[in-house]
Amino acid sequence: MRSHYCGQVTDALLDQDVTLCGWAHRRRDHGGVIFVDLRDREGLVQAVIDPDVPEAFSNAERVRNEYVLRVVGRVRRRPAGTENPNLPTGAVEVLVRDLEILNRSEPLPFQLDDDDTSEEVRLRYRYLDLRRPVMQERLRLRTRTISALRGFLDEHGFMDIETPMLTKATPEGARDYLVPSRTHPSSFFALPQSPQLFKQLLMMAGMDRYYQVARCFRDEDLRADRQPEFTQLDIETSFMDEQAITDLMEEMIRAMFASVLGVELPNPFPRMPYEAAMQRYGSDKPDLRIPLELTELSDVMADVEFNVFAAAAQDPKSRVAALRVPDGGKIPRREIDGYGEFVGRYGAKGLAYIKVNDSAAGRNGLQSPIVKFLPDEVLAKILSRTGAENGDLIFFGAGTTKVVNDALGALRVRVGTDLGLMNREWAPLWVVNFPMFEWDEQAGRWNALHHPFTAPRVDDPAEVRADPAGCLSRAYDMVLNGTEIGGGSVRIHRPDMQSTVFDLLGIGAEEAAAKFGFLLDALKFGCPPHGGLAFGLDRLVMLMAGAKSIREVMAFPKTQTAACLLTQAPAPVTEGQLRDLNIRLRRTP
Amino acid sequence: MRSHYCGQVTDALLDQDVTLCGWAHRRRDHGGVIFVDLRDREGLVQAVIDPDVPEAFSNAERVRNEYVLRVVGRVRRRPAGTENPNLPTGAVEVLVRDLEILNRSEPLPFQLDDDDTSEEVRLRYRYLDLRRPVMQERLRLRTRTISALRGFLDEHGFMDIETPMLTKATPEGARDYLVPSRTHPSSFFALPQSPQLFKQLLMMAGMDRYYQVARCFRDEDLRADRQPEFTQLDIETSFMDEQAITDLMEEMIRAMFASVLGVELPNPFPRMPYEAAMQRYGSDKPDLRIPLELTELSDVMADVEFNVFAAAAQDPKSRVAALRVPDGGKIPRREIDGYGEFVGRYGAKGLAYIKVNDSAAGRNGLQSPIVKFLPDEVLAKILSRTGAENGDLIFFGAGTTKVVNDALGALRVRVGTDLGLMNREWAPLWVVNFPMFEWDEQAGRWNALHHPFTAPRVDDPAEVRADPAGCLSRAYDMVLNGTEIGGGSVRIHRPDMQSTVFDLLGIGAEEAAAKFGFLLDALKFGCPPHGGLAFGLDRLVMLMAGAKSIREVMAFPKTQTAACLLTQAPAPVTEGQLRDLNIRLRRTP
Repeated sequence: MRSHYCGQVTDALLDQDVTLCGWAHRRRDHGGVIFVDLRDREGLVQAVIDPDVPEAFSNAERVRNEYVLRVVGRVRRRPAGTENPNLPTGAVEVLVRDLEILNRSEPLPFQLDDDDTSEEVRLRYRYLDLRRPVMQERLRLRTRTISALRGFLDEHGFMDIETPMLTKATPEGARDYLVPSRTHPSSFFALPQSPQLFKQLLMMAGMDRYYQVARCFRDEDLRADRQPEFTQLDIETSFMDEQAITDLMEEMIRAMFASVLGVELPNPFPRMPYEAAMQRYGSDKPDLRIPLELTELSDVMADVEFNVFAAAAQDPKSRVAALRVPDGGKIPRREIDGYGEFVGRYGAKGLAYIKVNDSAAGRNGLQSPIVKFLPDEVLAKILSRTGAENGDLIFFGAGTTKVVNDALGALRVRVGTDLGLMNREWAPLWVVNFPMFEWDEQAGRWNALHHPFTAPRVDDPAEVRADPAGCLSRAYDMVLNGTEIGGGSVRIHRPDMQSTVFDLLGIGAEEAAAKFGFLLDALKFGCPPHGGLAFGLDRLVMLMAGAKSIREVMAFPKTQTAACLLTQAPAPVTEGQLRDLNIRLRRTP
Repeated sequence: MRSHYCGQVTDALLDQDVTLCGWAHRRRDHGGVIFVDLRDREGLVQAVIDPDVPEAFSNAERVRNEYVLRVVGRVRRRPAGTENPNLPTGAVEVLVRDLEILNRSEPLPFQLDDDDTSEEVRLRYRYLDLRRPVMQERLRLRTRTISALRGFLDEHGFMDIETPMLTKATPEGARDYLVPSRTHPSSFFALPQSPQLFKQLLMMAGMDRYYQVARCFRDEDLRADRQPEFTQLDIETSFMDEQAITDLMEEMIRAMFASVLGVELPNPFPRMPYEAAMQRYGSDKPDLRIPLELTELSDVMADVEFNVFAAAAQDPKSRVAALRVPDGGKIPRREIDGYGEFVGRYGAKGLAYIKVNDSAAGRNGLQSPIVKFLPDEVLAKILSRTGAENGDLIFFGAGTTKVVNDALGALRVRVGTDLGLMNREWAPLWVVNFPMFEWDEQAGRWNALHHPFTAPRVDDPAEVRADPAGCLSRAYDMVLNGTEIGGGSVRIHRPDMQSTVFDLLGIGAEEAAAKFGFLLDALKFGCPPHGGLAFGLDRLVMLMAGAKSIREVMAFPKTQTAACLLTQAPAPVTEGQLRDLNIRLRRTP
């Protein structure tokens, strides 16, 4: 039906005939001639309809915005002075000799070039929203990204294998979406939170290298930027240790960034132990684009009279830390107060600071309400450790380690962004050496920091049992610009270690057999050492697109309450359907 | 952890050191030396452990079948006379200097080289079943097939776009799998039976060319070879008519067969109208590998005295047809009786036949109980129309068109297979010009032969309304070796036509608005002409693999009752989960 896409009509086609199909993006009548900007996936081109082709002209007179057209014409240079340098097709136009209206359009419920349309309207008419060039570009970026990742994995011998969607409750810990079984009354499938166990089983099956672009489901309250269904690039390998796995995976991400965005990421990615990340950035996913770091001061503050600092310094579950802001002395008082409120959101009780006016002048050169509480040698240590210079500002955090890390970690990003300190566009790294367990005060037992199938760094189950708190895991997270985009681990491949970890996590033998019996069985029959990871594709593409939400890089996302405004799902069903499934509704409260 | 895959160790690596990981496929002790066939995804290689490397030897002594090993050694030529020409690695062996047991294995519940293991055991221990080379090969074929199809589509500008899994009930007509919504009590998502409406919406969004390897769900009784979840290659395009779409799709399948199987499929594929397929093959998915055809005889039989034939010939809903079997005179009576029983399964009341002993001898040269009921000129016409020669056998079918088509259509394939008449390995074709509707006697209304979004061949809704029975659609099926592997259509792109078709199908305005309101809305806002199709990937790969069931080409299939024997899904859930979802169980009967 067409010879070219609209966006391909450049001066390379001068004097040639073209047949184009697309949407009337805009129609103008000027000097008795009709101009139609014809739009398709590849771009816009200007079509000109003269009254001396009466049939085409009379059709063109009926054209309204978003009518679907097919035009036949000849490409010619635009008259001098009417070129549009902002369009790749802007040097030419198509002189139309035939114009067919393939379909009409009622006036749209919103204007495609209005960037302020409410998200509700955009989602309800998603098929119109997706006509906007910015949305087309985002979905295309997604397609290209996934295709590049697949290409790399195919080349490296990974097999794309599909795992079931109708499966058993998985252990990720979020709420499952359930699917009632008709053929097994009173039983339910769960939609997978991830293909974790199936990919491990594929390693036990000797598949050696597996990947899947896998839909995953979590029925969580959609705080933050979550979706009930999301997409993971799920990967697993056999006979590779964490160094080999992370090397290969960062090579993949580098190759993808180079081919899709033309961006060269660092080689290698920095690797940072979890402990150091928390110490220096207050976060296990530090945004390294911002060249600010926390400075540890707990040892310095243990004996000061200022009790806020001293108490935190003496408590092993607390810390005192500083954040030096170069040239931060210029930050007005009002903004500093704002930062005080900001850290309050993370539980900090206040935000102490020192302005360094003249470091040579001793305490007189330091401007701050807290200076009077601190002895000279402490002040000197603060300056030397932070490396503060005249004109700098130093923020302080003191309290439980969690609050200090959360508060100063967030402040670091906020201040760095406000002051325009970001010194590069892309900052990937690996965070490694995570603790194996964290203590759950409420439940009074250990939780897995990753998941129960993550291998510890030691091989002997007795060592794990002897010191769960000190036990590190073989997990790794890939972090990009302060967002975790992927994470994984080397897995447990011996049944005794798996049973030990289940036990420490409070999963008794009976529960383990009921939930994971097939895994424990499988570990007995020659399970290879294996490991892998999963990338959150929605989030990765969101970062690459510079979009603010993963909803912007999904074709048909759901709302915060997990509804589809376009199709009006979920929806009531018939009594007959419920009866088939052996369920009934509860009375709604 | 390794330098090569086991299957890669050929004489190209002679005298080189290799490090291999894999499973002990078999251990033999021979002349004081231990031989281990080490197996990985790529194949087997023989490792030799001499007692003069005591540590490796003592480890090797502990090795049992399916132990996971890592060996380091040097590649050497096998002693003359001990080569194994059946293995790519059979000319060499690895002289081991280091052998590490990475994991042990209990004795397997079945032997991997036992081809008669019950399917139940195979599914329960699928991770072991998948270690068998035949299963590895099937999954690899699946990976390569899908990768080749993706490659073609990527090159041709198709965008891989994900559509929702948690969605609204779709109109394919099978039973939906339902997912209760927690955030919208008493409402349910449906898992998609296909992404049909979403892909049409993507065309309305201007995406122009879409594809997706899409999981689809149907809660049907699993007669035949069905699975509750299956995989479709789903495709849609804009501004292409059925000729352009089918041309491109057969090019894709040809390219895939060439690259994956090294097979050249015909170019172009034959195209056969539905009407002709039913007439000549009794099937809308004829197996063209079998060079037998039905011959129409209704006109010849209208006036014969033999009432079985005459009644069928005179009824417009019935037919009389013949199936000529060249050289079929040699088929023994017992087998002919067997064929009689066989057609009985399709509703045929009997199976009349004529053996052509000597066509020049008139009725005396014909051997059959029915010859006496047929006049000479009818006998002559039978011989001339069927082209029967001496030694041939002619089968007859008479009755309702459906029964005759089903019976003789199936008999054609059965006899052709029994006699070894298949004359090629691959026979693809397009079946086109399907009727738009078929009359549903029970419901007393029209049904859509494809689906309600399929466009008719006429543009005017009034023409469709005037003669639904005679209305042909713009649908097309791709058939391979008697199996429908793909099907699709040009879709309706105008709201008035869509409403007309809904109306004829008995979907009233209110129901249409409730179920498909968003589609009818979308059609108003400049919907482009569009069409597409979907391939059943499981079935396609099954044919390519020469497997007997789609379960053989899926990693983790379910049983006929839709259960997973490996994970024991579906399973009971807790009362708390049900309460969260606002449902309760019915009392089981």
